[in-house]
Amino acid sequence: KPQIPKVDTESIVVYDMNEISASADAVRKKEEVLILTPIARFYPEYWKNLLKLTYPRNLITLGFIIPSTKDGTKVHRELRAAVQAVQKGPKHQRFADVKIMIQDTGLSSGQSEKQRHSLEVQKERRSKIAASRNTLLFSTLGPKTSWVLWLDSDIVETPQRLIEDMTSFDKDVLVANCYKRHNGNLIPYDFNSWVDSDHARNLAKGMGKDDILLEGYAELATYRLLMAHTYDNGDPRTLMELNGVGTTALMVKANVHRDGAVFPTFPFYHLIESEGFAKMASRLGYKVYGLPNYLVFHYDE
Amino acid sequence: KPQIPKVDTESIVVYDMNEISASADAVRKKEEVLILTPIARFYPEYWKNLLKLTYPRNLITLGFIIPSTKDGTKVHRELRAAVQAVQKGPKHQRFADVKIMIQDTGLSSGQSEKQRHSLEVQKERRSKIAASRNTLLFSTLGPKTSWVLWLDSDIVETPQRLIEDMTSFDKDVLVANCYKRHNGNLIPYDFNSWVDSDHARNLAKGMGKDDILLEGYAELATYRLLMAHTYDNGDPRTLMELNGVGTTALMVKANVHRDGAVFPTFPFYHLIESEGFAKMASRLGYKVYGLPNYLVFHYDE
Ligand SMILES: Nc1nc2c(ncn2[C@@H]2O[C@H](COP(=O)(O)OP(=O)(O)O)[C@@H](O)[C@H]2O)c(=O)[nH]1
Ligand SMILES: Nc1nc2c(ncn2[C@@H]2O[C@H](COP(=O)(O)OP(=O)(O)O)[C@@H](O)[C@H]2O)c(=O)[nH]1
Ligand SMILES: [Mn+2]
Ligand SMILES: [Mn+2]
Repeated sequence: KPQIPKVDTESIVVYDMNEISASADAVRKKEEVLILTPIARFYPEYWKNLLKLTYPRNLITLGFIIPSTKDGTKVHRELRAAVQAVQKGPKHQRFADVKIMIQDTGLSSGQSEKQRHSLEVQKERRSKIAASRNTLLFSTLGPKTSWVLWLDSDIVETPQRLIEDMTSFDKDVLVANCYKRHNGNLIPYDFNSWVDSDHARNLAKGMGKDDILLEGYAELATYRLLMAHTYDNGDPRTLMELNGVGTTALMVKANVHRDGAVFPTFPFYHLIESEGFAKMASRLGYKVYGLPNYLVFHYDE
Repeated sequence: KPQIPKVDTESIVVYDMNEISASADAVRKKEEVLILTPIARFYPEYWKNLLKLTYPRNLITLGFIIPSTKDGTKVHRELRAAVQAVQKGPKHQRFADVKIMIQDTGLSSGQSEKQRHSLEVQKERRSKIAASRNTLLFSTLGPKTSWVLWLDSDIVETPQRLIEDMTSFDKDVLVANCYKRHNGNLIPYDFNSWVDSDHARNLAKGMGKDDILLEGYAELATYRLLMAHTYDNGDPRTLMELNGVGTTALMVKANVHRDGAVFPTFPFYHLIESEGFAKMASRLGYKVYGLPNYLVFHYDE
């Protein structure tokens, strides 16, 4: 292989993309991780959990995208205060980089859980969140990023070794199982991680090109195998192959995005956003997996 | 609108994406342009032409992606010498930034024009070039880029005001008409810019999900209206709406990419690479245009 100097004069930079590794041995190989969070509401528990993660912070870059609404301004203030407390602290405890983007999406963030999840509203909502994710990704994915961890802003509890654990499987796309705690019970939360069914495939065949299939709606039963329902408190290293994923805690090799896997804002095989992303990744030749017994927790609303 | 400070402490950066303009008035609004070129061969004429462009260089960032082959090493040497001559020269003549990426695509660059264009070879070739374009885009698109100009490495002649002219139409996606000069004649070259036909749509309907429609192959006549054939030496500001585009000289508003329009490496509506990109942009809600009487010239091989 030819020897190539990495940096020339001031304004020429050379990157050898063949040198980026994303392996089961991420810490030892000093693999850079980009944690991406679209954030419409700041949960202190999200931030506390993030600070407990054990992956070396000098290898972590954080990227946030905030809606430019009145609520967004509040989020921005809270997030900045939280970030500054760390980034102005001792050098060895700082993140490598923190990028905050602000973007008008035209979504009102004042919706309740019920409103947000109504079938009609979901399509537009998730399409706009998909666009926010793409914008965030395009402005933060660096030429040396190895892994992208999509972590939703309402994920309030994960194992501390989340990054070490998820990278250790060496999978192109890998999603944790997202539950919520409610009155001491574990309740399945994220239904976007699933294995396709013949029934759903047939439903899709009969649909118009702009229709989408969404999970968790009685009026549109898909009979897909939902990862959320396969949790059995067994081996946390159990893997299952999936066709759809959620983004609550989703680890992606950066090269999957670089090859062109993004979050479709339009119906892609009748799927959008994270579910469409899983389909796109598989069209690009990548495999998609989930960890049914590896739990992360959504805020209980 | 809330007032937001742009930069905080060292490692927090805030970008307001609502402030990026991409308008008919690019120079006056100091809009940043990213020129992207996957480059398998260095043509001195390409570089000379690039240096003649009149758009302010302090607003231009150049991004190249080179295959990591033996030929690529030669390209890298030639390109670096060319870039350094400019970037070590007078400050006011330098480009804002130059990024060179090196990536193994597994494509052999030693193919002749005939070999490259054989139907079987094209699909894999263009799929790999699509992946290179996506990788290049993900590592160079900055949070302040307004426009992306895709300019192939074998484009040896364009109007000097290419950037001012193309941005002046204020279109989301706009492609010039690519010809070549041969023995004093003008010969149409790029057939990827077209208007769809019923015939092609019907062909596509009968195809398997991994089949693609390619332009310019007798065995697969599409009866599409090819922009290359509509040149009539008339008004260079004539616009036509298109369904497919080539990348020889393609101007894209950066927000189109940020929303998630990339170059499909897989058959997307039976289209790949630049033609698939046009389809993806239109699925994202953008319109795609061409300039039949605005010519750029491909190297005559
Ligand atoms: N930037 C941005 N992020 C948003 C917006 N709406 C939701 N989000 C974030 O997108 C992620 C998913 O949204 P969420 O409301 O949690 O979806 P659900 O839990 O699946 O209903 C969370 O991290 C939200 O904070 C928005 O309008 N703009
Ligand atoms: N990085 C990279 N660029 C390539 C490769 N093959 C072709 N290119 C570039 O991709 C663009 C389109 O390829 P080209 O061979 O001109 O295609 P054609 O003119 O349509 O046959 C040109 O700018 C090439 O220099 C490759 O293997 N790697
Ligand atoms: Mn949520
Ligand atoms: Mn060419």
